Amino acid sequence: MIIILKNGAKAESVRDLEENLKAQGVSVNHIEGVNQNIIGLVGDTSAIDVENLLAQDCVENIRRVQEPYKKANRKFHPDDTVIPVRNTVIGNGSLQIIAGPCSVESEEQIITTAIACKEAGATMLRGGAFKPRTSPYSFQGLGAEGIRLLIKARAETGLPIVTEIMDSADIDLFADVDVIQVGARNMQNFRLLKMLGQCDKPILLKRGLSSTMEELLMSAEYIMAEGNMNVILCERGIRTFETMTRNTLDISAVPLLKQKSHLPVCVDPSHATGLFSLIEPMSLAAVAAGTDALEIEVHNDPKSALSDGGQQLTPVKFAEMMEKVKGLAAYMGRTIGK
Amino acid sequence: MIIILKNGAKAESVRDLEENLKAQGVSVNHIEGVNQNIIGLVGDTSAIDVENLLAQDCVENIRRVQEPYKKANRKFHPDDTVIPVRNTVIGNGSLQIIAGPCSVESEEQIITTAIACKEAGATMLRGGAFKPRTSPYSFQGLGAEGIRLLIKARAETGLPIVTEIMDSADIDLFADVDVIQVGARNMQNFRLLKMLGQCDKPILLKRGLSSTMEELLMSAEYIMAEGNMNVILCERGIRTFETMTRNTLDISAVPLLKQKSHLPVCVDPSHATGLFSLIEPMSLAAVAAGTDALEIEVHNDPKSALSDGGQQLTPVKFAEMMEKVKGLAAYMGRTIGK
Amino acid sequence: MIIILKNGAKAESVRDLEENLKAQGVSVNHIEGVNQNIIGLVGDTSAIDVENLLAQDCVENIRRVQEPYKKANRKFHPDDTVIPVRNTVIGNGSLQIIAGPCSVESEEQIITTAIACKEAGATMLRGGAFKPRTSPYSFQGLGAEGIRLLIKARAETGLPIVTEIMDSADIDLFADVDVIQVGARNMQNFRLLKMLGQCDKPILLKRGLSSTMEELLMSAEYIMAEGNMNVILCERGIRTFETMTRNTLDISAVPLLKQKSHLPVCVDPSHATGLFSLIEPMSLAAVAAGTDALEIEVHNDPKSALSDGGQQLTPVKFAEMMEKVKGLAAYMGRTIGK
Amino acid sequence: MIIILKNGAKAESVRDLEENLKAQGVSVNHIEGVNQNIIGLVGDTSAIDVENLLAQDCVENIRRVQEPYKKANRKFHPDDTVIPVRNTVIGNGSLQIIAGPCSVESEEQIITTAIACKEAGATMLRGGAFKPRTSPYSFQGLGAEGIRLLIKARAETGLPIVTEIMDSADIDLFADVDVIQVGARNMQNFRLLKMLGQCDKPILLKRGLSSTMEELLMSAEYIMAEGNMNVILCERGIRTFETMTRNTLDISAVPLLKQKSHLPVCVDPSHATGLFSLIEPMSLAAVAAGTDALEIEVHNDPKSALSDGGQQLTPVKFAEMMEKVKGLAAYMGRTIGK
Repeated sequence: MIIILKNGAKAESVRDLEENLKAQGVSVNHIEGVNQNIIGLVGDTSAIDVENLLAQDCVENIRRVQEPYKKANRKFHPDDTVIPVRNTVIGNGSLQIIAGPCSVESEEQIITTAIACKEAGATMLRGGAFKPRTSPYSFQGLGAEGIRLLIKARAETGLPIVTEIMDSADIDLFADVDVIQVGARNMQNFRLLKMLGQCDKPILLKRGLSSTMEELLMSAEYIMAEGNMNVILCERGIRTFETMTRNTLDISAVPLLKQKSHLPVCVDPSHATGLFSLIEPMSLAAVAAGTDALEIEVHNDPKSALSDGGQQLTPVKFAEMMEKVKGLAAYMGRTIGK
Repeated sequence: MIIILKNGAKAESVRDLEENLKAQGVSVNHIEGVNQNIIGLVGDTSAIDVENLLAQDCVENIRRVQEPYKKANRKFHPDDTVIPVRNTVIGNGSLQIIAGPCSVESEEQIITTAIACKEAGATMLRGGAFKPRTSPYSFQGLGAEGIRLLIKARAETGLPIVTEIMDSADIDLFADVDVIQVGARNMQNFRLLKMLGQCDKPILLKRGLSSTMEELLMSAEYIMAEGNMNVILCERGIRTFETMTRNTLDISAVPLLKQKSHLPVCVDPSHATGLFSLIEPMSLAAVAAGTDALEIEVHNDPKSALSDGGQQLTPVKFAEMMEKVKGLAAYMGRTIGK
Repeated sequence: MIIILKNGAKAESVRDLEENLKAQGVSVNHIEGVNQNIIGLVGDTSAIDVENLLAQDCVENIRRVQEPYKKANRKFHPDDTVIPVRNTVIGNGSLQIIAGPCSVESEEQIITTAIACKEAGATMLRGGAFKPRTSPYSFQGLGAEGIRLLIKARAETGLPIVTEIMDSADIDLFADVDVIQVGARNMQNFRLLKMLGQCDKPILLKRGLSSTMEELLMSAEYIMAEGNMNVILCERGIRTFETMTRNTLDISAVPLLKQKSHLPVCVDPSHATGLFSLIEPMSLAAVAAGTDALEIEVHNDPKSALSDGGQQLTPVKFAEMMEKVKGLAAYMGRTIGK
Repeated sequence: MIIILKNGAKAESVRDLEENLKAQGVSVNHIEGVNQNIIGLVGDTSAIDVENLLAQDCVENIRRVQEPYKKANRKFHPDDTVIPVRNTVIGNGSLQIIAGPCSVESEEQIITTAIACKEAGATMLRGGAFKPRTSPYSFQGLGAEGIRLLIKARAETGLPIVTEIMDSADIDLFADVDVIQVGARNMQNFRLLKMLGQCDKPILLKRGLSSTMEELLMSAEYIMAEGNMNVILCERGIRTFETMTRNTLDISAVPLLKQKSHLPVCVDPSHATGLFSLIEPMSLAAVAAGTDALEIEVHNDPKSALSDGGQQLTPVKFAEMMEKVKGLAAYMGRTIGK
């Protein structure tokens, strides 16, 4: 950490600051510049509060040198994390395809869709039981019943199930779920993250609409700091000024997160673009960029869907897309699923 | 609502769509253009699912005509909402000053700060008991003990207390709080919003870092749809590409939210800018733009603060600023407090 | 175009508005809603000024139905535009690789780099002669001499040359250039666009840092409205809140621009990411998403480069990357170059 | 400047880097950390190329300590710059009101509007002769004739005139203009900035839609580096995800630019918001935040305006607003005009 001192900072207050820093266990290097003096801190600066430093009279600014995340940091854990999910794994070089409807709507809908997804090559089943909706007047999901139906669909198809938690109070309902998803709006619901850190299930952590990659990694750190190392990072589009797509899918997050962290990465082109015509090309792009998994919305009858109809693929379209995804994955030497 | 049809849409699927829409209780107006045909819907379109429409074969795009919020909409409630807060009110043309530390840290700290804030002219006391922090390694607040200390500080000063809830499971701890704050990161924690809609306390609802004003109003709608009409909207800076300030304080939200909605509006320049040198000018700007309240971070000793030291004012600086705020408010014919 | 009328708009001012619109050659459809009346315009609305409509007393808002671009619009020109560039073409399904240094620095540098690029599989040579730099104290390019050196490098290698124009006054210097590039900062330099519309050279038009796809298409329209149909659209990253990458490469622009327009699309991962470790994965992603061309910065000695060292590939790294790009292109049935 | 070295950087390449840096005249301080080694540079680092450093094998990242602007930097020029404009000045603590139509449309229009603006209290006249328009099919301004009409309006009213240059080739047409405006889209048209740096007229430099404050100051530096110190910085809204306003007016730029720089600051609420109902509150907010000038669009007949009708005030509305602006300015101890 680098502390940039104010011009004309009083020697006394600089001395006080340095004493205070040394007391926190870091060593202090003073560099006198022509226009500006700086202090370089050496040691473990993760406990030092940047905001607190900024409140000191003599401090103009701070520049961090080290990443604030440790457990999620590839520097300290060079090997890829491989996460077991029921009968398969994520992060071992294979490509996982998580497919299914935006919302679970009925037994028939989820089972029909699950079977179609599996036939087309999906390796896991997604489906929303608790749905975060912008409007209180929109369909809010079937709740616990939705999870029960997903479990039925798993029994029918063998596909592990992925579904979203919206509130820490619901945690017990997820006891028999295979992967717990944290939605973009909850990426910084720190209480929820801590609670998920205390279970041992894989967590699919979606990047917030306006969250930096560093913040995503810090949210993973929240889960890992509590002991659960099974975190899958998910890029699902960020909010920008562009209005033609719902969000802007940041595919550069795939290689960059994998450079910075050892955790596996998933891409969700359905929510990112909101346009079904973009799902195939963006899925192929994500695979080419090295994603470990894709999460794709598929509905047996999008025209009648209770939510997000505009971005859900029909089983036929999904199957067509999967042919291309399988081909590309095979060309790149990657297996679909385990 | 306007439906833009695809070029070459089949007459049959357009007819099916129109039948389906009529069945939902809206009337249908077909306009044939040169390059494009459109359908105009008349009636209550709030139940019509845009995403579902976008999934229809014959639909190219949708343009909404009406705002999706109703209870928060000034069109249907022309008069300003005035919200009682203990012994005072927000929204009646007065200017409320909510001041206090980022976090409650100790009895001495909160009481000393509360007394200083009151002397300088603050009309309510803020203080964080549950703190959302980006890093799991940062101070996370005193929790229930923090609320207990706030209540002590209220007993000492008479100032109503404002503090943030982070999880619906904590709701009982807030029984004796005067205003419950929902932080920016929880603005779309819909479960929490619903629960707060079922109590009758004033809710200070902060705009999410990347939330549009319409989304803020939709989150207010969540609370109001459950029966609690006492919502205060709070602008606290949005995330942009600018890095010199922590966020960009969108002061235009003050007059615009007041045009679109009847709810009172608060501005938080401390979190928005993250720079204490900007708090006074931005507070004055917010008052000039018509805000109903300011929320300002004040700490008896910012250099030792456990969180957000860089943006908290000392009591002396706050008192200096308040002189200017009082003067400007008086010039504009507005009283401080009731 | 849809005009949303204010509640309580006077019948007289609505009548005046309608007369005025009819006089502009469009026909007018009045739809009476429950809470809101709207007017639908049919005909060629491209001449109607939205801002002017918004100034009318009775108008609350406007919703456009048609795209404002015509010549660049695929609706009116369904076939792909194929643009001849010297001895090759862009847009016919092949993949063009435009490679070379950020800046032309010397004869030796550009010729060495050009030969290395060609050997690795590049099909065109890029190099900056006029360099837009944020700081007036940075290297600003060799100017006319830079163009002369590019022409020498073309003579040596046969590669067509691509270089950026910064000012309409320089147009004559570009007489022997094969593709004229318009940089992101000049995407809305409308005078320059008009002048380029009057020549017949291919124009590589880069998307502005904060320009929507629609604005990019409108800038293409400026060139095309003057008669030059040879426009290549280039995605080079947009400005977002993310700071780990220089900009956010919006790969969804590739399929979406190709859906909306018949013009070929190029992707520049070098400027978008600013990180050489991301250039290979983002190039592969762009190819998978269907780009017609890649523009890649390659320098024979990036450590000594006078500009943008951090994002330029060495010839060795570029050759390694090209092996993967060639393989992927071949797998997708696309030839490199003609 | 701080250089963060890669873990495991070779001693030899670090030594080479340090030699190279010393040769550039800076002194080098090596700090060995636990996980990371860093190099602190002391001296004039403005000539050191950050991108070039990033291309070195041993470098992981760079943190700048000093601002890259010098002539625009208040650190080196503590006193406010006061800029003479014909018979008045900007930057001496007074408040200048620059008012007039978006575009000059006719002699009658500009003279009628100018007289009305002056009567209401405006101190300078604005009007566009060259108009940057997103669509090639929109009105593009009267060009040279527009400037001639502005000069006539000045003769009639005595108001100094402010008008925008779009292309360096037009510079001679601006010989008799009082303040040359550079529009947001041209903020990084570096060739134009250099040319304006060689004249001695005041330059009103608008912040680009997606430009940081630092970039705005760097563009001012371009003008100043050529010798023209008369630069007025203008905040006119930045592009964000919010769609209710055209742009987001960043009022925090007013106090922050004045802290960082000695140059005067202007605010343009008309372009920022695009909504006439917001112009009065945002003007008052800007004055409260300390702006040196306001630029407001006023049109004698907005309903017939050839451009930007939706954001232009009528003379009556402008006069009403000016009453409040004058009152607030007087309360704050500031004169309108000289």
